[in-house]
Amino acid sequence: MGKTATHISELAAMVDGEWAGSTDVVLTGLADIGSATAGQISFLVDKNKAAGEINASALIVPRAFGHCEIPVIYVDDPVLAAAIIHRHFIGDEFVAAGISDRAFVGTECSIAAEVTISPMVVIGNNVRIGSRVTIGPGTVVGDSVSIGDGTFLHPNVTVLAGSLIGERVIIHSGTVIGSDGFGYAHDRHGNHVKRPHVGFVQIDDDVEIGANVCVDRATFGKTWIRRGTKIDNLVQIAHNVEIGENSILVSQVGISGSSRLGYGVVMGGKAALSGHLEIGNRVTIAAKSGVTSDLEDGAIVSGFPAIPHRKWLRASTSFHKLPDLIKDVREIKKKLAALFADGSED
Amino acid sequence: MGKTATHISELAAMVDGEWAGSTDVVLTGLADIGSATAGQISFLVDKNKAAGEINASALIVPRAFGHCEIPVIYVDDPVLAAAIIHRHFIGDEFVAAGISDRAFVGTECSIAAEVTISPMVVIGNNVRIGSRVTIGPGTVVGDSVSIGDGTFLHPNVTVLAGSLIGERVIIHSGTVIGSDGFGYAHDRHGNHVKRPHVGFVQIDDDVEIGANVCVDRATFGKTWIRRGTKIDNLVQIAHNVEIGENSILVSQVGISGSSRLGYGVVMGGKAALSGHLEIGNRVTIAAKSGVTSDLEDGAIVSGFPAIPHRKWLRASTSFHKLPDLIKDVREIKKKLAALFADGSED
Amino acid sequence: MGKTATHISELAAMVDGEWAGSTDVVLTGLADIGSATAGQISFLVDKNKAAGEINASALIVPRAFGHCEIPVIYVDDPVLAAAIIHRHFIGDEFVAAGISDRAFVGTECSIAAEVTISPMVVIGNNVRIGSRVTIGPGTVVGDSVSIGDGTFLHPNVTVLAGSLIGERVIIHSGTVIGSDGFGYAHDRHGNHVKRPHVGFVQIDDDVEIGANVCVDRATFGKTWIRRGTKIDNLVQIAHNVEIGENSILVSQVGISGSSRLGYGVVMGGKAALSGHLEIGNRVTIAAKSGVTSDLEDGAIVSGFPAIPHRKWLRASTSFHKLPDLIKDVREIKKKLAALFADGSED
Repeated sequence: MGKTATHISELAAMVDGEWAGSTDVVLTGLADIGSATAGQISFLVDKNKAAGEINASALIVPRAFGHCEIPVIYVDDPVLAAAIIHRHFIGDEFVAAGISDRAFVGTECSIAAEVTISPMVVIGNNVRIGSRVTIGPGTVVGDSVSIGDGTFLHPNVTVLAGSLIGERVIIHSGTVIGSDGFGYAHDRHGNHVKRPHVGFVQIDDDVEIGANVCVDRATFGKTWIRRGTKIDNLVQIAHNVEIGENSILVSQVGISGSSRLGYGVVMGGKAALSGHLEIGNRVTIAAKSGVTSDLEDGAIVSGFPAIPHRKWLRASTSFHKLPDLIKDVREIKKKLAALFADGSED
Repeated sequence: MGKTATHISELAAMVDGEWAGSTDVVLTGLADIGSATAGQISFLVDKNKAAGEINASALIVPRAFGHCEIPVIYVDDPVLAAAIIHRHFIGDEFVAAGISDRAFVGTECSIAAEVTISPMVVIGNNVRIGSRVTIGPGTVVGDSVSIGDGTFLHPNVTVLAGSLIGERVIIHSGTVIGSDGFGYAHDRHGNHVKRPHVGFVQIDDDVEIGANVCVDRATFGKTWIRRGTKIDNLVQIAHNVEIGENSILVSQVGISGSSRLGYGVVMGGKAALSGHLEIGNRVTIAAKSGVTSDLEDGAIVSGFPAIPHRKWLRASTSFHKLPDLIKDVREIKKKLAALFADGSED
Repeated sequence: MGKTATHISELAAMVDGEWAGSTDVVLTGLADIGSATAGQISFLVDKNKAAGEINASALIVPRAFGHCEIPVIYVDDPVLAAAIIHRHFIGDEFVAAGISDRAFVGTECSIAAEVTISPMVVIGNNVRIGSRVTIGPGTVVGDSVSIGDGTFLHPNVTVLAGSLIGERVIIHSGTVIGSDGFGYAHDRHGNHVKRPHVGFVQIDDDVEIGANVCVDRATFGKTWIRRGTKIDNLVQIAHNVEIGENSILVSQVGISGSSRLGYGVVMGGKAALSGHLEIGNRVTIAAKSGVTSDLEDGAIVSGFPAIPHRKWLRASTSFHKLPDLIKDVREIKKKLAALFADGSED
């Protein structure tokens, strides 16, 4: 039996699930319901979505799913269980290809034995690279950067001088870590005088950052993205921002300088924060919102300026009524004027 | 006569136009009205814009333009005719410079004889590159990518493993094709568990993608951009999105996971779609809109949440009246209260 | 005394400040108030922010600050003074490392003696590079580009053919200068016909451009960013845009084709301009606004479509009252109907 061929009973144990079926079937991979074939397990979130022929040999289903004709694993959250089982089947993808002779490595670097440093990579001086790190082609790592074990930098990433990258961090292509913050003083002639940015960026363990993201270095001190936070593509993180653990920033979010987010914060796509805000833990900021003031733990907000989500929902779905409302009020004023005119004639 | 020197009669035939003038003048290039010089043709959309001296030797004009003192081509759409004639004069820009010895090419690749692969390019293993393909400096092409004939990848593009790129596709600098989708499951401790993204990106013929765009690979299956679609800079296309033929996505648009757009869809700048939507054919989504529900063929929408464009236009231009409206209603309530108080005293 | 060790009296003279204290202390650097140590000067904008122990040996403070126990420099604008003094201490950071043998340089280039051209840089043909220019690793400079003295291109920048870059310009990583504008004509079959973009980009002296910015080349003529303008990350500048001197574009701004901005314009984060607009001098466009018409000098606008900022502020903070307003008006209409019904019964 190959290393990833696994009994359904073993898979069920990995995900705190209970399996059922006529036989403890052996599975070799996971695919989505439409493409899974014999030997593979798939997953369903909703019984009603199970249209079409199912060729999978087993299914991960919610506990309330009921009886199934093929072997199943009952779990609380099929998407979570499928992610865990899929990762089990894929296994460890790390390949230690060493340092390409087409890469350029500076002086006084400390690089672990087991790494992949691809062609056209440039590593500065005094860089520390941990074990099982992969650096994709064209990626640039500046002086005095530190990269923890198991981290993966995709191609054409730029990590500028002094950045500290934790373990098992994933950074996607085109992303820039440690560019100067957007900070200027202004003289009396209207010229903008660049403030030196002598801080750095710290990215903690298990963070994932999407493609073409920007994380600016701090003016002083650090810009800090804490453990387990996931950032989608094209997000802007300004200088001195701090983002708590396990937060989620969806694509095209923008966070202005020195704002601090708690843990478990979720910002929907294109949402924005102005600068110097304190955003509590487990705050949810809806897509396209613009937050201009501090938010308490657990707040759920929408709109610009952001207000409680329920209020915004009621107001925004009424928005199209505004012109009629204006007409109504004009009518009412006329009627009242007539009424009072009548009255005054009495 | 040089290969691009062309009689106005020939140019007129290329664009279904009718030419007029004292002589079948020979032209050698096209420029805008302010800079065209003797020997060049220019174009005008609007007679009233023809201010200043005209040094062009001929003009492309709309059919209703009337008499002109220099030779003209009358057409339905001068911008379209100018584009076609300009492309004729520029001709084929492809240069087969071969594979630079400063590029890195992996194993088991199939690369056509006539290509330009620039310095510092990295090509993975098992890559197929068609004829007359240009790959700019610093561009990275991952394993098992296929690139069709006549495609142009500008410098510093990243095309990740497994992507399928059609013919005559243009991808501008900084763009990332095939980064992982933003997909996580969530465990009971608030940790985000990465879902493997084993799908790919397919980009069909004649697509053009601007600079610093992100197109994520599918979780399973494919993210698909269909023939002739044009995408501006800094656009986000999430995993499993499908975009129909000949659509237009203006700069900074964001499309969330698994949404499907029909053909001929136009999204204005910064417009956004939430996930899992079905957007019909020839839908127009105005700039800065946020669409949160499915749209029928031909719909024209604006705002957030998006509503029919005309409704939004009326409501949004009334928005500034809201404070006065509130004051009016407060006054009316007072008057009515007084009225009913009077009444009750009766 | 080291080259940067400086008497407080000298520092005060640099910033038009007045110093006070028991001794003309010698200082060796600047840091923020929380981390400055003995020998360093720091700065305070607000006396009330001076919480915690201060270990700095001197302070830059506003003129109204009052007496201080350690040596101080009184100035009009402590942030400006700190920027100037900090830059004095940092001094000239330019290092002439020459042209890396791992860079690729085309033919007929004119490159000053004192430059740094890093590994994996690609320079095209006929490029002019001034003195004291730094080009970071992985950056690509196209044919016929001109780069003025003292300019700094960070890693993985792309400057495409024909761009003119002035002196002391700073361009951050991932930014693309001179990609094609997003311009198409449309044929009767719904196909989009690419308009050739034969213009270029001109960036004047002392401009700074953030990371992952896009500046498109002109269709004809030039896209022009004038002296001293500062552009934050992820900004989109379309073809033929002109931006006046000393303007400020905050992150994720988008400017559509052919719009012209005066000098001293400020656009907040995510603000957008539609095309072909004339924006006056010293206009302020608030974050997230969408401007759809021309603006006079000094205008301050917000919202979408943008209106005077004060009006928008009143309207937007009233937005949540809209549902109650609708209810009120409904009630009023009922009462009035009843009233008139009563009246008619008379």
